[in-house]
Amino acid sequence: MNIDGNPWRTIWLERDGSSVGVIDQTKLPHVFTTISLSTCKEAADAISSMVVRGAPLIGVTGAYGLMLALQEDPSQSALERAYRLLISTRPTAINLRWALDRVSLRVGAVKESERVAVAREEASLIAMEDVAMCESIASYGFDIFKKLIKERPAGQELEPLNVLTHCNAGWLAAVDWGTALAPIYKAHRSDMQLHVWVDETRPRNQGASLTTFELSREGVPHTLVVDNAGGHLMQHGKVDAVIVGADRVTKSGDVCNKIGTYLKALAARDNGVPFYVAVPSSTIDWSIADGLSEIPIESRSEREVNEIQGALISSNSNVCRSELVGVQLSPFETRAHNPAFDVTPAELVTGLITERGLALANYESLKRLFPEEN
Amino acid sequence: MNIDGNPWRTIWLERDGSSVGVIDQTKLPHVFTTISLSTCKEAADAISSMVVRGAPLIGVTGAYGLMLALQEDPSQSALERAYRLLISTRPTAINLRWALDRVSLRVGAVKESERVAVAREEASLIAMEDVAMCESIASYGFDIFKKLIKERPAGQELEPLNVLTHCNAGWLAAVDWGTALAPIYKAHRSDMQLHVWVDETRPRNQGASLTTFELSREGVPHTLVVDNAGGHLMQHGKVDAVIVGADRVTKSGDVCNKIGTYLKALAARDNGVPFYVAVPSSTIDWSIADGLSEIPIESRSEREVNEIQGALISSNSNVCRSELVGVQLSPFETRAHNPAFDVTPAELVTGLITERGLALANYESLKRLFPEEN
Repeated sequence: MNIDGNPWRTIWLERDGSSVGVIDQTKLPHVFTTISLSTCKEAADAISSMVVRGAPLIGVTGAYGLMLALQEDPSQSALERAYRLLISTRPTAINLRWALDRVSLRVGAVKESERVAVAREEASLIAMEDVAMCESIASYGFDIFKKLIKERPAGQELEPLNVLTHCNAGWLAAVDWGTALAPIYKAHRSDMQLHVWVDETRPRNQGASLTTFELSREGVPHTLVVDNAGGHLMQHGKVDAVIVGADRVTKSGDVCNKIGTYLKALAARDNGVPFYVAVPSSTIDWSIADGLSEIPIESRSEREVNEIQGALISSNSNVCRSELVGVQLSPFETRAHNPAFDVTPAELVTGLITERGLALANYESLKRLFPEEN
Repeated sequence: MNIDGNPWRTIWLERDGSSVGVIDQTKLPHVFTTISLSTCKEAADAISSMVVRGAPLIGVTGAYGLMLALQEDPSQSALERAYRLLISTRPTAINLRWALDRVSLRVGAVKESERVAVAREEASLIAMEDVAMCESIASYGFDIFKKLIKERPAGQELEPLNVLTHCNAGWLAAVDWGTALAPIYKAHRSDMQLHVWVDETRPRNQGASLTTFELSREGVPHTLVVDNAGGHLMQHGKVDAVIVGADRVTKSGDVCNKIGTYLKALAARDNGVPFYVAVPSSTIDWSIADGLSEIPIESRSEREVNEIQGALISSNSNVCRSELVGVQLSPFETRAHNPAFDVTPAELVTGLITERGLALANYESLKRLFPEEN
């Protein structure tokens, strides 16, 4: 990950070893600022207010949140309270539960005086592993891109590969690399010609504000479109592949991801466009099969639909780059409904790109890659 | 059409008989204001800047635009210049060409001294006919709603009928009544219980700003959702029918409408939800069959994607209801692509609701209703 020539991560242990730094993603792309989390409450608030977001990053932040809680009180009851607080922040992404379980299991096995150090070690390990998993996804995804170019009709091999993505599943959603964008970065650094269609991703606009920010910083050619446009682009042959991340994948391959993903998957099928989902194994929920009935879908504030934030454009058309303001879009009496995720049935998914390679979206194929899971 | 208890139309001849009044739709829902168009250039600007929009209303405004041009210069060359100026404003909606042709044909047959009066008469006739066609659509659409309720499983007859609509095809898009919303108003005034899911409709947000405005004023229960949410709602049985308008329908039943309509049609098919399109016959283009290859899709400014307008919310969370400001959503270097319409293939359309009744989306069925067309 590269921000104005400097390598960054989205989350890090501060030098004091007892607080955690993160990039404040609610102010991007207009203002780049970091904040320091010193308590479990602050970590929980950072997750629920989407200062940090993205399934892998939520998991790592949760893990560090337990460390912060244990610094205040290393008792078992404090650990359980912190677990409950953190798990309640976002119900859909399974990575959070997975990370909290990992840390809880390890610290539960040691005495209170060792718990902070063990939590710190485990959280840091989860962060390191996330980077490694995402880099592996990058390689497997890049292989798929190469294959797609190879299969093109003669004469079109040199055209840029057009990839459409929804939401943000780049480095800002993980610790580094990202999931869906990782293969794009790998390909770009290997001089493959590619161009990314970026879905705006209402209501929180993670595409318009975060994916564009990342791709700009990395120098990857891209074009922003509203969420409504993807089907039209596919009808006219402008999309070679769709690639998205996920917040939870069931063992049968149903994919829960940012609201609107399902509509793009339908359009991809209707137009013969391959639809890939990039997921570290921490996003696979082996305890459930049916995505539509078994995954809790977070319902967020209607204010996210009725209002939007941006950099103020003054009446003379200048933009005050750092003056972030909110505007009301709809009539004041209008009520809104704001489901944050939807479920794409496995039959619409061409493949799942994991850190161990490509799986088809079904139990047999996933199990072959992860035989240790039940 | 009912705004705060008063009947309105979206366009009218001013008392002087030589200028035309319209509601400025770019400022809704926050500011309700009207403006007066005195020249053909002003009428053309009103169409291209979307002060007036919606296929039927664009047609009527174009017709009056010719009248305004002839007031300045009734010559044949001035008439042709005005036609070219007006037709260039929006390429997709066929109603504009249809209305300009009607007025041109009539004024072309009379001498210059009579042209203004004939243009005024023909434009007013088109406006009146539009109201009548929309009211007829209202009745036929209401019949369909009644049938949908009748076919429900026993015990569910009293649940509100949940209708999803995309963009704005209400009275603001026509002269009165509207197309897709007309049956909803008819049903509501007949005490049918119904609830409307309103797609926000990025990038110009005609759903969030105009459809919500109309439904509020008419007292119809409704909920705003982002464009991404419709598929999820259908997967969970929350939508009984989709109903939209159109900017052009081919003789084989392909439907060109606001960008994103195609995605909703795909989701409707995938979930067994009926998908209706409400169109006056002025929206049917009998000269073409294949929507995907034959309809020009307007590409609008990328600023409509990168920026958005709303009522400023001050830092203390108060909203300045009348202070409309623009905000930049994406990084300043980001380029955007903004196709304004897409095409829904006929096979995804359950039926076309016209002023002569319901047609299937195919040539034979349309021709049966409109035998006079070629």
